Amino acid sequence: MKNIDHSAVRIRDGFWKQKQELVRNVTAKAVYDRFSDTGRFAALKCSWKPGDEPEPHIFWDSDVAKWLEGVAYLLQEAPAPELYSLARAAIDDILSSQEADTGYYNCYYLTHPDAPRLTQRGNHELYCLGHLIEGAVAWYAATGERDFMDAMAKYADYVEKCFKTERTAGFVTPGHPELELALVRLANATGERRYMELAKFFIDEHGVDKREGFGALCDWANDIYNMDEKPLRERDTIDGHSVRAFYLLSAVADIAAEYDDGELAAAARRCFDNAAFKRMYITGGFGSSHIGEAFTGDHDLPNRTAYTETCASIAMAFFARRMQKLETDSAFADAIERVLYNGALSGLSLDGRAFFYENPLEIDPDFNHVEPATKIPPHYPITQRLEVFGCSCCPPNVVRLLPAVGDYLYGLDGDTVYVHQYADSEAAFDGVSITQTTRYPADGAVKIRVFGAKKLALRIPGWCESFTLSVPYTMYRGYAVADVTDGAEIELLLAMPVVTMAAHTRVHADAGRIAVMRGPVVYCMEGVDNGKELFSLKLAADAVFEEEDSSVCFAENAPLLPVLKTTVTRRSAPDALYSPARAVVSEDVPARFIPYFAFANRGETEMQVWVLEK
Amino acid sequence: MKNIDHSAVRIRDGFWKQKQELVRNVTAKAVYDRFSDTGRFAALKCSWKPGDEPEPHIFWDSDVAKWLEGVAYLLQEAPAPELYSLARAAIDDILSSQEADTGYYNCYYLTHPDAPRLTQRGNHELYCLGHLIEGAVAWYAATGERDFMDAMAKYADYVEKCFKTERTAGFVTPGHPELELALVRLANATGERRYMELAKFFIDEHGVDKREGFGALCDWANDIYNMDEKPLRERDTIDGHSVRAFYLLSAVADIAAEYDDGELAAAARRCFDNAAFKRMYITGGFGSSHIGEAFTGDHDLPNRTAYTETCASIAMAFFARRMQKLETDSAFADAIERVLYNGALSGLSLDGRAFFYENPLEIDPDFNHVEPATKIPPHYPITQRLEVFGCSCCPPNVVRLLPAVGDYLYGLDGDTVYVHQYADSEAAFDGVSITQTTRYPADGAVKIRVFGAKKLALRIPGWCESFTLSVPYTMYRGYAVADVTDGAEIELLLAMPVVTMAAHTRVHADAGRIAVMRGPVVYCMEGVDNGKELFSLKLAADAVFEEEDSSVCFAENAPLLPVLKTTVTRRSAPDALYSPARAVVSEDVPARFIPYFAFANRGETEMQVWVLEK
Repeated sequence: MKNIDHSAVRIRDGFWKQKQELVRNVTAKAVYDRFSDTGRFAALKCSWKPGDEPEPHIFWDSDVAKWLEGVAYLLQEAPAPELYSLARAAIDDILSSQEADTGYYNCYYLTHPDAPRLTQRGNHELYCLGHLIEGAVAWYAATGERDFMDAMAKYADYVEKCFKTERTAGFVTPGHPELELALVRLANATGERRYMELAKFFIDEHGVDKREGFGALCDWANDIYNMDEKPLRERDTIDGHSVRAFYLLSAVADIAAEYDDGELAAAARRCFDNAAFKRMYITGGFGSSHIGEAFTGDHDLPNRTAYTETCASIAMAFFARRMQKLETDSAFADAIERVLYNGALSGLSLDGRAFFYENPLEIDPDFNHVEPATKIPPHYPITQRLEVFGCSCCPPNVVRLLPAVGDYLYGLDGDTVYVHQYADSEAAFDGVSITQTTRYPADGAVKIRVFGAKKLALRIPGWCESFTLSVPYTMYRGYAVADVTDGAEIELLLAMPVVTMAAHTRVHADAGRIAVMRGPVVYCMEGVDNGKELFSLKLAADAVFEEEDSSVCFAENAPLLPVLKTTVTRRSAPDALYSPARAVVSEDVPARFIPYFAFANRGETEMQVWVLEK
Repeated sequence: MKNIDHSAVRIRDGFWKQKQELVRNVTAKAVYDRFSDTGRFAALKCSWKPGDEPEPHIFWDSDVAKWLEGVAYLLQEAPAPELYSLARAAIDDILSSQEADTGYYNCYYLTHPDAPRLTQRGNHELYCLGHLIEGAVAWYAATGERDFMDAMAKYADYVEKCFKTERTAGFVTPGHPELELALVRLANATGERRYMELAKFFIDEHGVDKREGFGALCDWANDIYNMDEKPLRERDTIDGHSVRAFYLLSAVADIAAEYDDGELAAAARRCFDNAAFKRMYITGGFGSSHIGEAFTGDHDLPNRTAYTETCASIAMAFFARRMQKLETDSAFADAIERVLYNGALSGLSLDGRAFFYENPLEIDPDFNHVEPATKIPPHYPITQRLEVFGCSCCPPNVVRLLPAVGDYLYGLDGDTVYVHQYADSEAAFDGVSITQTTRYPADGAVKIRVFGAKKLALRIPGWCESFTLSVPYTMYRGYAVADVTDGAEIELLLAMPVVTMAAHTRVHADAGRIAVMRGPVVYCMEGVDNGKELFSLKLAADAVFEEEDSSVCFAENAPLLPVLKTTVTRRSAPDALYSPARAVVSEDVPARFIPYFAFANRGETEMQVWVLEK
């Protein structure tokens, strides 16, 4: 199945339009400003000298590159002169500082001539190049200006020489995957097959040659951290650093599709299944521990010390979208929907200016949020959003995700148009034009009108237990497939009641607990609405919920979704460490649930997704 | 208050008599045999040469010394010719290998002349000396043979010279506390005040001079690991390695009592309170993480990855007994009772031959028992008991604990005899003679007859919600104090129903869960009785329990306590990672609870203390 690019899709109104406008009007410039404050843009000129502050960092280029990619997507949708000028100036700085003979570019290494290049696997040079390529490809598509892409292609040629042709580099595969998937995009944008070959080379070398370790972490983690303990085509599980794993698997899916490599495709599918069905938080968060920013084991999903980096959820969307090329299965779009509405979106504040790096499923400001066993704290505060981080990968990832959310709506397989995601929108591609009129996910009614297609395949979301479709259909791999005639309106009605959810009985952390969902959106409780010690409240599985407009909680940018009122039981135990259970006093109290993605927008307060079941 | 030594107390019958006979008839020799197999006894001769296998370890002396101490206690009670001969031969080997001029002894360092002595704080030389002193003092008390104690006193003199007088040693305070409390015992046994002074010196130096770190662990842990980040008299919390912390605090309590040091006593009390009321598992286990074998933070009490070393529970008993000298408060005897019947005793198999090093509160053989975040596994198997460990501190600690359980029964304060613990026994000390006739803890009826005391103070256990006493009494700090006349029988009846317990609402791990206790004994469920996924079963707080003879579960050495029958709800969720809560199917099924200390005596199986509350 072919994925339809967001450039063919226009979000018209509703939930995602609100978020896209926020990025256009606030977030893109806010991230630029913070990156300027912290020296990231100035560093592009590569004029740093010892003693200057701040000193460029090995991964700063990637932060800027992702921001450039996001700005390109905004420009593709509509003009934005200020953002264009800022971006173009940054690109000019990169191009004028690039090494003339090799094409090499890195704002750290070009200002630190004594630091040996392409020698330390963990030092992010190839990661930065990957993001620069993605930014350059996007810039070319948006503006037609090809110089940035050509310049990065030259650097890619140099990498090909050092890593593949002459093998003079100090390691074999990128320590932080990203270049692999970027090379696929570069190959497609330039038509140069050898970039695809280079991407395949890196995929094939993974887990084969381990002569260079990662270096920074303890030994136990080295190989698994990089999913490098065995060849990728032999993998059954997703392991190690969660963002890196998904970036790498995105390229695995690309290469499997490009080379029609069934063995590699099967490995990618096994890893997807392991991620989605054994190691995924209900929020679409991934990575159970901030030690190594990593996956741990099946069903190990601790809530308070969850790592669940914003980038990991975003990267799952990248991976799952590519899996759609290999196989028709609504599981991929289900995963995408879950991360988009929950674990990815939770990374952005409602005002569009601040971010979370980590998105736990339980917050207790009074409790030590370190990993208890090791006393290692989270990387960044998890009770208050920040405008920029030392390692600020997540903010520009949000900037490039949201303007491109149209990427996830459609697929085309022969004469069948697949509708993966629902959003008020219009699109035109391959002779097809299609409109969706809907308030989704505020409700589950979607009216669709299509021209130029014989069949429509409408995803019936995994969360949906009951739906009606206005035309006859058959089910195929999670999609309701109907014959369509040009211009006829089809109406899909997805029942969207509030549902309490239970986790698999193997998930220790959620045993005896339930979570609240409404459609694809996971809800949570916050202390600001519900008082303290949320983790000892009890909620009945059949609790009745009343919907309220979310403006009762949020003055500005209130999500276009209701908040929920219900009743919970508050339990008070005596002050002793252990007391007879009969001494615990219970009392019914009113409670409010808000969309999980909107947590921590009203000051530092407790938060909880999984509530004890009454 | 004066603590009465076990040498004045004879356990006659019942629960502890069964365990003492087991140690006398099985455990003492079994530990000897495993220590012989592994070279620990042969190593005492200090004849190891490079290339020989096995190579002595820096802490082996301590294993033997604790075994010697336990054998001494057995000899004190009744002759045991074989054990005497084996012990005496070991002592002879130590004495003949001891360095003539200095008195130095360590089976590792004396065979590794190139390894610098008394230089590495973490290398256990002073820890070994402490245990050798405790063994030697006990041996002298049991046999009247003074040579071992005199030899170890000579080594202590050398330590005084190197650490205190001349300060030529490579560090200041012992990396593994133990010597401090041993020096107090040596001072009392020899009448030499300067050993007390040396103990006080080490206590005073703690947290003052940090010029030498521990070395083996990561930096984060160094100071806290050793409770060395600040002076002991400034402490508010118990931290770091849990066994070391309690050994150190035992000496703190000793020194506070000996020097009437109120500031030090207050610090010891704060640490006791922090341990007992914020950081103690309901089983009397201590240490929430096997990383650093350490305390983590208040109310952080994860069940499956609990560290809870057998030695830590034993060491709490040592500490709490010494606290009784400083202050009259039944909290100390409550803590002692909790550890004796639960977290300490769980370290010994019912057949007396095998041990646990770690005693978690939940076992799931199908689930990875590593610390999920770091993938660091437990030190030793936690699903199957072993007869010996590489680091085999726990087995001989059990050997010295159980024969001396009489240590915990009585205190004397003026003309008041304090009865801290209940056990069928007779005792004579300081002109007092006292007998207890009871099946405790099989039931809560205790008949007491005393001669030579004016008042009896009977502890009303913290777990006891209702009791009757056959004579008038007043309550004083947890004790029922009554006037007594010589030879009159007093009857105490402690109501001992099965009670479901809840943890403080700050304990995340136990939120929504209840535990089952009967008197001082914590119960657990095992998979062999109750099937799989115990952690998702639900138990009503007001469940009705039926008592059965424990022989229905255990063919030999069945605990002199009932097992419990009740009904729980088994829950089956669909196979998906997340499903609607209403899809979870519940079914009432019969369930059995056994005493926690008896877990893992019937093969590898799940186990759980905290059960979801229905």
